[in-house]
Amino acid sequence: MHSFELLSQKFALHFEQKHFPDEPASLYGPNEYFLGMGGKRIRPVLCLMGNEMFDDIKPDAWEMATAIELFHNFTLIHDDIMDNAPLRRGMETVHKKYGVNTAILAGDVMLIAAYELMNNINLLVIRQVQNLFNTTAKEVCEGQQYDMDFEKRESVSFQEYLRMIELKTSVLLAASLKMGAILGGAGQRNQDLIYDFGRKLGLAFQVQDDYLDAFGDPSKFGKQVGGDILANKKTFLLIHALETAPASQQKELKDIQQKRSADKVDKVLQIYRDCKVDEWALRLKNRFLDEAFTHLEDIAVISSRKEPLKQLAGYLVQRDH
Amino acid sequence: MHSFELLSQKFALHFEQKHFPDEPASLYGPNEYFLGMGGKRIRPVLCLMGNEMFDDIKPDAWEMATAIELFHNFTLIHDDIMDNAPLRRGMETVHKKYGVNTAILAGDVMLIAAYELMNNINLLVIRQVQNLFNTTAKEVCEGQQYDMDFEKRESVSFQEYLRMIELKTSVLLAASLKMGAILGGAGQRNQDLIYDFGRKLGLAFQVQDDYLDAFGDPSKFGKQVGGDILANKKTFLLIHALETAPASQQKELKDIQQKRSADKVDKVLQIYRDCKVDEWALRLKNRFLDEAFTHLEDIAVISSRKEPLKQLAGYLVQRDH
Repeated sequence: MHSFELLSQKFALHFEQKHFPDEPASLYGPNEYFLGMGGKRIRPVLCLMGNEMFDDIKPDAWEMATAIELFHNFTLIHDDIMDNAPLRRGMETVHKKYGVNTAILAGDVMLIAAYELMNNINLLVIRQVQNLFNTTAKEVCEGQQYDMDFEKRESVSFQEYLRMIELKTSVLLAASLKMGAILGGAGQRNQDLIYDFGRKLGLAFQVQDDYLDAFGDPSKFGKQVGGDILANKKTFLLIHALETAPASQQKELKDIQQKRSADKVDKVLQIYRDCKVDEWALRLKNRFLDEAFTHLEDIAVISSRKEPLKQLAGYLVQRDH
Repeated sequence: MHSFELLSQKFALHFEQKHFPDEPASLYGPNEYFLGMGGKRIRPVLCLMGNEMFDDIKPDAWEMATAIELFHNFTLIHDDIMDNAPLRRGMETVHKKYGVNTAILAGDVMLIAAYELMNNINLLVIRQVQNLFNTTAKEVCEGQQYDMDFEKRESVSFQEYLRMIELKTSVLLAASLKMGAILGGAGQRNQDLIYDFGRKLGLAFQVQDDYLDAFGDPSKFGKQVGGDILANKKTFLLIHALETAPASQQKELKDIQQKRSADKVDKVLQIYRDCKVDEWALRLKNRFLDEAFTHLEDIAVISSRKEPLKQLAGYLVQRDH
């Protein structure tokens, strides 16, 4: 059994290679550039951990983990175009540096490269793994489309937002664990449980992310605190406030969104506090985290095998009391 | 054995179905819209013909043919963005009608849908088929990148242009035939021969396309005759003229390209005729066609099984004497 940290280091070494041919350099250069930016590589490590909960890590799991990371990077390259994002991890995005057309093609070929790796998986499980991968890949695209649609909409319900987050973020975490579990020989019920653990952990993580964007410690939170509020971004907090606050505060929230006042962030935060949206968000996060841990508990392996995932969950999402 | 026309009709019926779920309609609606535009469906029919040369058409070949057509449409949706094309088959392109972001995602999910279909292929050949598909898919992306690169370059050699056309156009025709042949149980040598037949047929077709754009009968050619010349598009004709014409005519060609004169097309055509570029192009086309037919002849099945592909080749490329 390996800890999350150790598997992360091992995967980083494994992933540190050329993934594409030399030519055309105008296509594959941008891909290598983007992969070279680094990243936390959480999804591939989840795949390795999903395998190791049930058996020693198989060579197939390394292939699959690499495919998952390539897939994730494909989505990032294309999402950056759609979001018109100039920077990622402090470096120029592919479309800014090389143009939109090359960024589209670079993403396309990154996705195909993921499938190339998956084609080597043991024939006994290749269909099962690819079926899950394909379903998940489509769901991630659907999540991105919903996200773009919601940006243009006046109002979005809590249920709609939850489903969007699930598709855009959670299912890939969940599927990464489950694909590893399949390769490790897990039975159907254990596969389903590890999937649901990942799904709920992803939701808890997103609630935490939305919370920290508003109430986080500026010295610890990686992004600008209040960024979501300034951008009128629909978040768990805003959607809940608009659904549950008294009519007067709902109106005030909407009015603030229309204006560019210097104290916009402070005013919104005050409404959130008045309506106890902050406390609600922490409860919601804890609920998803509890549900995730219940699924983890229910997996039928000795508890020592669950330790690395418990540690990882604690690293990704901090419990608040 | 079925003729090309009959298989085309059968495939059109088979393909006339919903390929995507209802929701999100903002993502899958554009995909159904694009597929509903129709098309000649040549690639999937090549897959069916490749199968039928060696055995009765297997259910897998229908799945594979559908996957190939979805892949082809994925490339068209993304290429239309890159080419900034407003229309296809007289209808608005996806990015014009629904925006670039949705067109990127719609293409992505179309590619994933192709892989979903391929996941059902017989395990005995799934790796071989997907391996060829993945290699071909990457090559098509490489061809598109070269095409974009060449547009910005001062000069492109005949060999470079030939390789670009091979990647962008020929390999998918060739692979469609070969994937069908694999599913039909063809041996390795027959697989290679049918691939090379498709590859050379694709090259002959492109030479013909470049030729007809300059010298075609306006009443028969589907596009505007002279369109390539007006757009300064690098074609087999232009590249050969710039490589072989006397220095004075090379200079004249380059001068004409800089200007927007009313008789631009006539002037370029005159140079082509003076340098006998037209005759050279017809010889080149015939050479590729001859090579294609030699590969077809060499396939080790009785000749009656080759008739449908011979007919198709005659339909796609007309021999000139």
